[in-house]
Amino acid sequence: MNKHSVAVLGATGYTGQELVRILRDHPGMFTRFATSEAEAGQAVRGTSLRYVKAADVPLAEVDIVFACLPHGESGAYSIAAHEAGVKVVDLSSDLRAGQAGAEYGIPELWRDCVRGKTLVANPGCYPTGILLGLAPLIRAGLVDGGKPVMIDAASGVTGAGRTAKREYLFGEIAEDYRAYAAGNAHRHVREIGAGLGRIAGGEAPEFVFTPHLLPVRRGILETMYVPLVVGAGVGAAVEATHSMYAGEPYIEVLGETLLPSLRDVVNTNRVAIGHAAVTGVKDPLLLCVVALDNLVKGAAGQAVQNANLMLGFEETAGIGR
Amino acid sequence: MNKHSVAVLGATGYTGQELVRILRDHPGMFTRFATSEAEAGQAVRGTSLRYVKAADVPLAEVDIVFACLPHGESGAYSIAAHEAGVKVVDLSSDLRAGQAGAEYGIPELWRDCVRGKTLVANPGCYPTGILLGLAPLIRAGLVDGGKPVMIDAASGVTGAGRTAKREYLFGEIAEDYRAYAAGNAHRHVREIGAGLGRIAGGEAPEFVFTPHLLPVRRGILETMYVPLVVGAGVGAAVEATHSMYAGEPYIEVLGETLLPSLRDVVNTNRVAIGHAAVTGVKDPLLLCVVALDNLVKGAAGQAVQNANLMLGFEETAGIGR
Amino acid sequence: MNKHSVAVLGATGYTGQELVRILRDHPGMFTRFATSEAEAGQAVRGTSLRYVKAADVPLAEVDIVFACLPHGESGAYSIAAHEAGVKVVDLSSDLRAGQAGAEYGIPELWRDCVRGKTLVANPGCYPTGILLGLAPLIRAGLVDGGKPVMIDAASGVTGAGRTAKREYLFGEIAEDYRAYAAGNAHRHVREIGAGLGRIAGGEAPEFVFTPHLLPVRRGILETMYVPLVVGAGVGAAVEATHSMYAGEPYIEVLGETLLPSLRDVVNTNRVAIGHAAVTGVKDPLLLCVVALDNLVKGAAGQAVQNANLMLGFEETAGIGR
Amino acid sequence: MNKHSVAVLGATGYTGQELVRILRDHPGMFTRFATSEAEAGQAVRGTSLRYVKAADVPLAEVDIVFACLPHGESGAYSIAAHEAGVKVVDLSSDLRAGQAGAEYGIPELWRDCVRGKTLVANPGCYPTGILLGLAPLIRAGLVDGGKPVMIDAASGVTGAGRTAKREYLFGEIAEDYRAYAAGNAHRHVREIGAGLGRIAGGEAPEFVFTPHLLPVRRGILETMYVPLVVGAGVGAAVEATHSMYAGEPYIEVLGETLLPSLRDVVNTNRVAIGHAAVTGVKDPLLLCVVALDNLVKGAAGQAVQNANLMLGFEETAGIGR
Repeated sequence: MNKHSVAVLGATGYTGQELVRILRDHPGMFTRFATSEAEAGQAVRGTSLRYVKAADVPLAEVDIVFACLPHGESGAYSIAAHEAGVKVVDLSSDLRAGQAGAEYGIPELWRDCVRGKTLVANPGCYPTGILLGLAPLIRAGLVDGGKPVMIDAASGVTGAGRTAKREYLFGEIAEDYRAYAAGNAHRHVREIGAGLGRIAGGEAPEFVFTPHLLPVRRGILETMYVPLVVGAGVGAAVEATHSMYAGEPYIEVLGETLLPSLRDVVNTNRVAIGHAAVTGVKDPLLLCVVALDNLVKGAAGQAVQNANLMLGFEETAGIGR
Repeated sequence: MNKHSVAVLGATGYTGQELVRILRDHPGMFTRFATSEAEAGQAVRGTSLRYVKAADVPLAEVDIVFACLPHGESGAYSIAAHEAGVKVVDLSSDLRAGQAGAEYGIPELWRDCVRGKTLVANPGCYPTGILLGLAPLIRAGLVDGGKPVMIDAASGVTGAGRTAKREYLFGEIAEDYRAYAAGNAHRHVREIGAGLGRIAGGEAPEFVFTPHLLPVRRGILETMYVPLVVGAGVGAAVEATHSMYAGEPYIEVLGETLLPSLRDVVNTNRVAIGHAAVTGVKDPLLLCVVALDNLVKGAAGQAVQNANLMLGFEETAGIGR
Repeated sequence: MNKHSVAVLGATGYTGQELVRILRDHPGMFTRFATSEAEAGQAVRGTSLRYVKAADVPLAEVDIVFACLPHGESGAYSIAAHEAGVKVVDLSSDLRAGQAGAEYGIPELWRDCVRGKTLVANPGCYPTGILLGLAPLIRAGLVDGGKPVMIDAASGVTGAGRTAKREYLFGEIAEDYRAYAAGNAHRHVREIGAGLGRIAGGEAPEFVFTPHLLPVRRGILETMYVPLVVGAGVGAAVEATHSMYAGEPYIEVLGETLLPSLRDVVNTNRVAIGHAAVTGVKDPLLLCVVALDNLVKGAAGQAVQNANLMLGFEETAGIGR
Repeated sequence: MNKHSVAVLGATGYTGQELVRILRDHPGMFTRFATSEAEAGQAVRGTSLRYVKAADVPLAEVDIVFACLPHGESGAYSIAAHEAGVKVVDLSSDLRAGQAGAEYGIPELWRDCVRGKTLVANPGCYPTGILLGLAPLIRAGLVDGGKPVMIDAASGVTGAGRTAKREYLFGEIAEDYRAYAAGNAHRHVREIGAGLGRIAGGEAPEFVFTPHLLPVRRGILETMYVPLVVGAGVGAAVEATHSMYAGEPYIEVLGETLLPSLRDVVNTNRVAIGHAAVTGVKDPLLLCVVALDNLVKGAAGQAVQNANLMLGFEETAGIGR
């Protein structure tokens, strides 16, 4: 069988680079076009390609597009490409509310909805970890919906993209740490709420989301304070999570004694989930800590996972462990 | 007037080094003895001293001791030195529950209790930030005591001390981030609870404390989710904080629009406090974010601040801004 | 064909961890035993194994040993295992002078000597880069042997191993940089000299080797100042290097305009080599800059490359690009 | 006496920020104006000032200007301000060849030339360390002028300024290391040559300068391979350096056994100089390693040192140790 021909739109960004890297080892897809407006004509490191401008990609020669353009541009390109008959995974936030019929793709939660689809919106990095961590607890009825879940998250700097901005210079970030977009002001809040609502099959639990900027290149850690219903505890939480993710190649449930760290997941497509009991408070409360690589499971790796489902490949093809 | 003669016990640790550095510029104290068991006889960088063993310090020639020995050893030494008539600031956790009559020294909260005392227990780094951030809110009656405060904290690695341990090697910490001692298992939990109780003048509000290990050398950021009483909001919180800390040289209240970052406080004795409103939850909730340098305001700087009060100096003497 | 059974001796060190990681994807070998004295009985992350003590490895069940024990212990173990009929790659410096008949294994230089051997000494990380960078220049007669080559090298901290030492704590290394073992005092100097002599087929050119400690986890960059014979220039150097390494899967020759950086090679088995002309000096001089990952091409990756040659596999089997 | 009124031109850059910080504690100068084109009107952190545009500084109200504008703009502004009767320290490279009569200001080498001058060109960060390290050796006749000095230098990222450029993003720099402007292509090469010539009182020794980019915020380490005349050795080098810098407050000569690291000097105005013998080469060769903080002794600290000499203050006023 011929390999499917891929166009990576926005291939000089961190996510685009990661896609090109993953696709080098994919058994059923190969990167035919990699786009960059600023570096058009230059060589794509590690390949025999040269960057072309997005407008110069001949869609007739492309089977599937991974669109990593800036938010705003990406969705428009993706819709146009999809209307031209090309399969599309859009990695921006533009289509995540289902615009143009796009399917929201977290395989471990909604695998069957993604399989065979032709337009998929790849989830945000923060929401991926939050939804995967909370889904087993919500589905098992362990979460007390009357109180907010506090979600304290920290991300490596590549999550902010590769555009030159003063605030992301090494001299600004090294040895620093800070919260940003606090108080539910982050643009992922709506996506998180929608995802929780879909999991709950109705009203989403309340939550407060506070992202922080870590002085590391990649990785997200999300520390979640989850109010439990009376009678529930860490044992039930671990069991529900184990049970829901049994056999999942990319979910690692750590049990009651271990919490994940970035090192466990960086450079892999894995999500590591740990739980801890909380003592000293009267109402039952659970700590649920999730780690993932923002560029792999939080972006390029999950995009290939979705593409594999869209194209009928083994879901893990080309992604490694 | 002759300068007071100081002994720094445990002077090769990060806190001890910082004390020696601060005291070089102090107008009323000078380091006469700096101890190290392993490096006795070697030169103390930046001074004309040589390290001596702790047992070889002639207490008769010392006016004040800063004890930075390991937890366990430090308190015993401090009590003995104090009984020998020497003033003591103990920087370990050994005396923070008031053992041997030690006064718990956070000047901005209990300045008058420290003034003129001869034995002071210097607070932990995490509790310093938490108590300073929450005190104005508790005292102003803004905190809803029926729900726990969630305290998500992150500290630079020097907070773990300078003893060689595999888990703190550069190769383990760089590009990593993780929670530890989660679920109220950290040894500072008791100190935090006692401090909150003292501020509240009775029962402390419940809290959950989750420390994380940051890949930076120094600095603590504490993101606190504070349930408010009905009718209270971020404006009242900022106002109460401003009002309580008016004129304080080391407290910087940022107002409603800014949150602090480590860069604002590292290498200074300052605590920066910011507040943010939280939208999208039905019960009133406040974000209170506090930043400080764990080695300065969280240890050596506050110790000198306490010593200044004990000896009758200007409280800011030698500490800088 | 059954896969060859592997024992990784010293599997909790950085090199041992990397070996276990690489071997997970190897088509012809699998890790049967992973040893640790301190963590015996505990699980080996990412596998279904548990660590055993080195003395408890039943050599009769092992086809090939990778010995990553501390310098001193490793060679003794390797010789004993080899005498017991097991194939051995020793990753310490113990056998690199040819002790017990061990072959020094840099495939790109002496591939045919390694093929089919049963005891191979895996080269040091610094010498690997130096010898691969200088070999084409020496063999092509471009180096002026009358003047020393200055070799200014910088390595990430994992090169110092995973044993707990104060000097390698995050708090000591972050934001620092320093030379060590300067003036040809490093233990690799003898290995470098022997390797250069073997390349030259006689007397080695003089050299001065100055290693530095970089605040990064992994990667080595070696900046070499190479005196050239009259008439030689950067063009001849690039051509000789291109020509010697044509078809080599792990050597990337960058040409006259680019110099390598750690990012080009980290997490891969590649060595990137760049050259630059030097202006403003009367005698011809060349800059040759080499980058490699100290844990992959500088240790575990090259060890698997050697093992592949020893066992008759494709040289790149399991190593990736 | 009234304090001298200062204008810091380009006060949002790393050097400008450092100047504002140093001047807060200066006994004889205070920052009256701090300029920024992009942040005009905003508050200057840690002061009661607001940024103004450079064109809006009323020079009639200014006693001394520190010009930290981009190379190209800075010299023009400095010359105009100087012609308007204001004293000027220009921190760009524009006037370092003596344009408009500017004096090149390294106090430890040419203190008497700076004293009382009204226009001073502040040296580059790399040249400052090189010239201070080599001056004692050249003046004592220890350097063999017939062979080049190899200068392998590494700088923290703040040396590249605070302008947003992709290559200096945290995501590009962290865990990376590379040479740049190799082969004597760096713009400091001419300044180094001129300085060495002035020290030598005639022809400068040849040299090769290779800067590298370190993943640290601040600090420069320069490892120099210095050919010695026959009979000279490390002892003579240490002695000459000690002797020349006896009593200098900002030069620390480490002796024969220690080499400096960034940690020794960062956040101070000090230059630390170490020497090591080289074994295994037939012609006498010395390693001379120099460390300094690129933003303090390499920029803002030395600028204030020069200003103190220009204005008749104690040379160390306001700079600290």
